[in-house]
Amino acid sequence: MIQTKTQTTVKEPKITLVGAGPGDPDLITLKAIKALQSADVVLYDALVNQALLNHAPEQAHRVYVGKRSGDHSYSQSAVNKLMIDYALNYGHVVRLKGGDSFVFGRGYEEVEFADTYSIKAEVIPGISSSISVPALQGIPVTHRGLSESFWVVTGTTADGKISQDLYQAAKSKATVVVLMGIKKLAEIAAIFDAAGKSRLPVAVIQNGSMENEKMVVGTVSTIVEAAADKKIDSPALIIFGEVVGLHSDFQPIRAFYELAERE
Amino acid sequence: MIQTKTQTTVKEPKITLVGAGPGDPDLITLKAIKALQSADVVLYDALVNQALLNHAPEQAHRVYVGKRSGDHSYSQSAVNKLMIDYALNYGHVVRLKGGDSFVFGRGYEEVEFADTYSIKAEVIPGISSSISVPALQGIPVTHRGLSESFWVVTGTTADGKISQDLYQAAKSKATVVVLMGIKKLAEIAAIFDAAGKSRLPVAVIQNGSMENEKMVVGTVSTIVEAAADKKIDSPALIIFGEVVGLHSDFQPIRAFYELAERE
Repeated sequence: MIQTKTQTTVKEPKITLVGAGPGDPDLITLKAIKALQSADVVLYDALVNQALLNHAPEQAHRVYVGKRSGDHSYSQSAVNKLMIDYALNYGHVVRLKGGDSFVFGRGYEEVEFADTYSIKAEVIPGISSSISVPALQGIPVTHRGLSESFWVVTGTTADGKISQDLYQAAKSKATVVVLMGIKKLAEIAAIFDAAGKSRLPVAVIQNGSMENEKMVVGTVSTIVEAAADKKIDSPALIIFGEVVGLHSDFQPIRAFYELAERE
Repeated sequence: MIQTKTQTTVKEPKITLVGAGPGDPDLITLKAIKALQSADVVLYDALVNQALLNHAPEQAHRVYVGKRSGDHSYSQSAVNKLMIDYALNYGHVVRLKGGDSFVFGRGYEEVEFADTYSIKAEVIPGISSSISVPALQGIPVTHRGLSESFWVVTGTTADGKISQDLYQAAKSKATVVVLMGIKKLAEIAAIFDAAGKSRLPVAVIQNGSMENEKMVVGTVSTIVEAAADKKIDSPALIIFGEVVGLHSDFQPIRAFYELAERE
């Protein structure tokens, strides 16, 4: 059960789910900053840049509820309860999540939970890494003549498996962006390989938009080794598609294939 | 040919492609605001909220290069040339585009064109309407148990047709978001109907995030009439998927189907 303090709650309980963007603290919206400025409590995740906490008032409580894959310091249910508890006792809770709250962010579960306490949860969209991290590397998810759509899939479903949607995605002509899939890169690449896409360009980007960003490009058949060579680890996204071929790092790979074909 | 003024160019030519977000002027990033603050020229599109131009210095040139569907006031090639012309003559050009520049924004074509003049074009991602407009209506593009992926498709390809990708998307389990498809709503709904999805929840949202926002929900079989009743027109996006069923407006529709089934 969630307990309220014995003292009277001064402020109306309120929850705002805020997307913090991909990491660069300047990639947060003005609307998000305004929400942070009126926060009594900020509940923030592992992938949130802590510099963003400076937008909150000095006296606001800053509570880390981070989870990284394999390290469940707080369960979703514990986060939900904390969120309500703080809202009832302190007023405005900003729930600050990496990227966008509704892109595999479990944000809607928090909206639903708040609703059971009749607390309205406002949603402020964030810059999703799915589009922005490739873009910052000069890779457009769509481009005339190369891609008329993009498909964003989770690499890790609720039961820890690869999404079945990925098997369809691998067969499609869409640019495919896989989030939370780096630990299963070999399995995921095998799915594209089985779909006859061994030469499709692929990029893996770790810590996109941050100073410690790492990136590697390759093809479906070379990306696993290339990512291992560069020691790329989570958090990272994988992008499959002809649009990756626009990246300058892909030019020597293309040249190699063209040479191999001529011989 | 692009002409430079006879006078010496004072500033280094520079181009920044800035995503302006879905319409709400607070849904722009801090990074975008900083770019606007150092702009000598802002080239902006039809779907950009003009309030954003206030972030640019008073003396900056504000140039409208808007195109709406069917009203090509500037061709892409004319915009490209203007962009270079202004950069060479005035310095920092901010190319302000609705949503995100790389989500059907033809942003990469502008990056490539700038490159042919050896002018570096920086990209600042924007909040894409594809994710944010449903989110602001409380519709998450992904949600545990309902959707493990989302697929964003253009309703109007370079040759004015419906993207072939949409036929695959209609058969998939992904949440499908169609941008620039409202004029072809009947054709698009027919594609989902042919894929056996007549009861799939659908929402159409016009002017998402703005005060004049309009929205309607229905199913694949009812959405065309529902959108016509509400006189929904472009700019609008269409979202197909079980996640649309989470919207409160869908509850009476669900109740109706359940009742019909019982009888």
